[in-house]
Amino acid sequence: MINIDWKPDKNSNMPLYRQIVDYIKEKISGWEWIVGAKLPSQRKLADIFEVNRSTLIEAIDELKSYGLIDGRSKGGTVIVNNTWSVLASGKAPNWEKYIKSGVYEPNLSTIQMINKLEYEDNIIRLSTGELSPELFPKNAMKTVLSKVADDISSLGYERTKGSLELRKIISNYVKKFGINASPSSILIVSGSLQALQLISMSILKPGDDVLVEKPSYIKSINVFESAGMKLKGISMDMHGIEIREILKNINKETPILYTIPTFQNPTGIVMSENRRNELIKICTKERLPIIEDDAYRELWFDKKPPQTLKSKDRNGIVLYIGTMSKCLSAGMRVGWVIGPEAVIDRLGDVKMQTDYGASSLSQYAAAEWISSGLYEKYIEKLRYELKSRRDFTINLLHEYFYDLAEWNVPKGGFYIWLKLKVKIDVNKLFNLSWKQGILINPGYIYDFHKNSNIRISYSYASYSEMHIGIKKLSEIVRKLI
Amino acid sequence: MINIDWKPDKNSNMPLYRQIVDYIKEKISGWEWIVGAKLPSQRKLADIFEVNRSTLIEAIDELKSYGLIDGRSKGGTVIVNNTWSVLASGKAPNWEKYIKSGVYEPNLSTIQMINKLEYEDNIIRLSTGELSPELFPKNAMKTVLSKVADDISSLGYERTKGSLELRKIISNYVKKFGINASPSSILIVSGSLQALQLISMSILKPGDDVLVEKPSYIKSINVFESAGMKLKGISMDMHGIEIREILKNINKETPILYTIPTFQNPTGIVMSENRRNELIKICTKERLPIIEDDAYRELWFDKKPPQTLKSKDRNGIVLYIGTMSKCLSAGMRVGWVIGPEAVIDRLGDVKMQTDYGASSLSQYAAAEWISSGLYEKYIEKLRYELKSRRDFTINLLHEYFYDLAEWNVPKGGFYIWLKLKVKIDVNKLFNLSWKQGILINPGYIYDFHKNSNIRISYSYASYSEMHIGIKKLSEIVRKLI
Ligand SMILES: Cc1ncc(COP(=O)(O)O)c(C=O)c1O
Ligand SMILES: Cc1ncc(COP(=O)(O)O)c(C=O)c1O
Repeated sequence: MINIDWKPDKNSNMPLYRQIVDYIKEKISGWEWIVGAKLPSQRKLADIFEVNRSTLIEAIDELKSYGLIDGRSKGGTVIVNNTWSVLASGKAPNWEKYIKSGVYEPNLSTIQMINKLEYEDNIIRLSTGELSPELFPKNAMKTVLSKVADDISSLGYERTKGSLELRKIISNYVKKFGINASPSSILIVSGSLQALQLISMSILKPGDDVLVEKPSYIKSINVFESAGMKLKGISMDMHGIEIREILKNINKETPILYTIPTFQNPTGIVMSENRRNELIKICTKERLPIIEDDAYRELWFDKKPPQTLKSKDRNGIVLYIGTMSKCLSAGMRVGWVIGPEAVIDRLGDVKMQTDYGASSLSQYAAAEWISSGLYEKYIEKLRYELKSRRDFTINLLHEYFYDLAEWNVPKGGFYIWLKLKVKIDVNKLFNLSWKQGILINPGYIYDFHKNSNIRISYSYASYSEMHIGIKKLSEIVRKLI
Repeated sequence: MINIDWKPDKNSNMPLYRQIVDYIKEKISGWEWIVGAKLPSQRKLADIFEVNRSTLIEAIDELKSYGLIDGRSKGGTVIVNNTWSVLASGKAPNWEKYIKSGVYEPNLSTIQMINKLEYEDNIIRLSTGELSPELFPKNAMKTVLSKVADDISSLGYERTKGSLELRKIISNYVKKFGINASPSSILIVSGSLQALQLISMSILKPGDDVLVEKPSYIKSINVFESAGMKLKGISMDMHGIEIREILKNINKETPILYTIPTFQNPTGIVMSENRRNELIKICTKERLPIIEDDAYRELWFDKKPPQTLKSKDRNGIVLYIGTMSKCLSAGMRVGWVIGPEAVIDRLGDVKMQTDYGASSLSQYAAAEWISSGLYEKYIEKLRYELKSRRDFTINLLHEYFYDLAEWNVPKGGFYIWLKLKVKIDVNKLFNLSWKQGILINPGYIYDFHKNSNIRISYSYASYSEMHIGIKKLSEIVRKLI
């Protein structure tokens, strides 16, 4: 719980131990470090502050003498009080207990780690599922924002389902994916993750099973599980999720299936046209609703992927989710859900209650991006860029991993699902790698059982980082064998 | 569940009944109106479409003959099938059942109604808790956006707690409210509503009591109740929430108190300096955490309100919430929570899992607004504008409501809490009013028992609308007596 990103200044006149005492005092008296929190071990602290053990002990002793920390208990050094609370009549609330009592699960510790490491300096991110800043269309964004600035005449709360203007534009935009949807059956969300969150709180109930591909993106986030659902993994072959396995795993109570049919995360698999038809047929027959997460559809390299499941849906069983995160900007937080109006109304009503709707600034920008045609033009170029990054990365793998791993060659999207042929501990690999400045996503965060995979993303790192990163990674793997 | 915002075209060559048939067919076959949904009564439909009853019956009969709708059941006309599902092998999922099974409560029907009516044309919104488009600082926003467009070099996922840049700026900004907080104890949220949502999912548990002022904004939204908490109302006097009443209502298990100490919504009450000191003292003693919702602080008219509760907090018991919604733009969805770092980390981790963070476009804009000084300058002018709106509205009340109601004269914020002296049914008043084009917020959506209040907001409607609206409203009240 305690984060330290500070070091004493070796050029200062103030003794090092004194600087450390002041730093910790400030953290405690400013209530940033709460009573009950544990400090890292003395050895670790000395490492973090880059001081001798004796300097650190001097500082710790002084803090103990103030009654702020206590090192006698077996659990290490603990914050036991703070200057003001000694004076005041009461004590701080037992926040640790509060933190443990919320229904939401904490993120997997590996994910928390990744989230943090992504912002370290000088780390090569072979893992990140977003576009490289190098690919950011700065000029077009400038054009869009200046148009938006001209157009905006107020920025109040939006309608329950999001800006009508944007919904009309999306209604038109998804036609090219074979989807016919009027603005009233579209909900604007703050990214597709929020769509999943809303679905879990609005139309599913605790105890429900959610069928998902094995492995899947959804496994790496707690969104359904925190709402009390259980994930049930369904295996895939090269054509996508296996129908036979779905039938084996459903019963009358199974409420929903989540799939990423196109350029799946993490495997890159594209569900074939036939499989799509079968899936729709069987789910219609079984009255099993489908969540179609279509985040990567636009990012094909040589030919368009098969049409959306939604376009084949004649009974309103598909809830379709789209997003701007993977094509343009994850930070804009603009996505959409399309489905039967009654369901969309329900999701919108709950959205209203959780955050009053997505940023209208982002909605304006999204509307302008698409309606101006800039979005389509930009994506056309993006496809070439991504393809070239894929080729470059596959070549690197041939050079450094030819004897270490197997992989697919993705036809779109961001990811290569690298299967190690050598027996090593992937968790160890993850830890060794980041310590050497290379961040990878270990396969186990996506899967239902241990595996020996790594997800490599070619969308984020620069070409030179990619080269250095993959080379180093192969060296670490070789050492671990 | 069925929304109709369409009318047949009387100038078209196509007969009216045929246009209606085609419209409804399209809605059904496009799965927007789902099987099992009920149509409005024939009389209502005729009204909505502005056609004769006989024209409507002709259309309905044709739709029946297709097997799409059925009018025999007692519940009215119901959609029983759609063309494609007749052909397909399966049936639509029972979406109505899904919609009922989610844990989240639907919004109060009055609130759903208000949310919808706010977007009707020609409605005078005496109720809306946001700034009038007339007050929108278009030019300054243009300056800000053009600066932002220059600065942005990519828009990826933000850090867990939000943009570090913005958190530094907020850390500095809240100093003037006596708050000392480092960026790591600040979480950026998509508005304060989301802060409450995160608190309820992260550090409270189902069954917990939440103490709140009576009446309160929080009563009008389901955020805590949908997460399984119960609201317990604590009465107020003119100095704010009553300490005696808190003590009567807490026990060892009471986890948290929610308060809007400054320009409270809906009463406009400002908690006095003494009451603030008492509240902090007693909550510290009882180890009862406080959520301080400070949305309206900046909007004082003649003198600054007393300092924040957070500034008086020596034990980390206050979670402080701020927002840009009431001062600048509700659509930007930018707010912040300040508290002990461990709590903020926990809220941030859950935020990450629900929507990956607030719009970075909005965060950039917020940072630029504040750091450029434009925010402060603009708010200075805004105070005068709002004060003049308050005076205007109070004068109107003197003219039209002198014998009908009592009211406070708010010293800041948006609201006048109008207490009717005459005995009428406020729900009836609400309904009659909107039918005549005037939207008010009935007091019962904020309170724990029936009351005879209305919340009038002087922030939104134009001066002339305000005049027409208050005059008409008084006439409706008089008719109802
Ligand atoms: C399949 C899939 N869906 C959704 C998301 C999240 O996207 P958004 O930024 O729209 O919430 C991701 C991000 O990695 C993804 O891979
Ligand atoms: C006291 C109070 N807090 C919070 C909000 C919601 O604000 P936000 O737009 O920041 O979610 C409102 C809006 O009416 C309010 O009155």
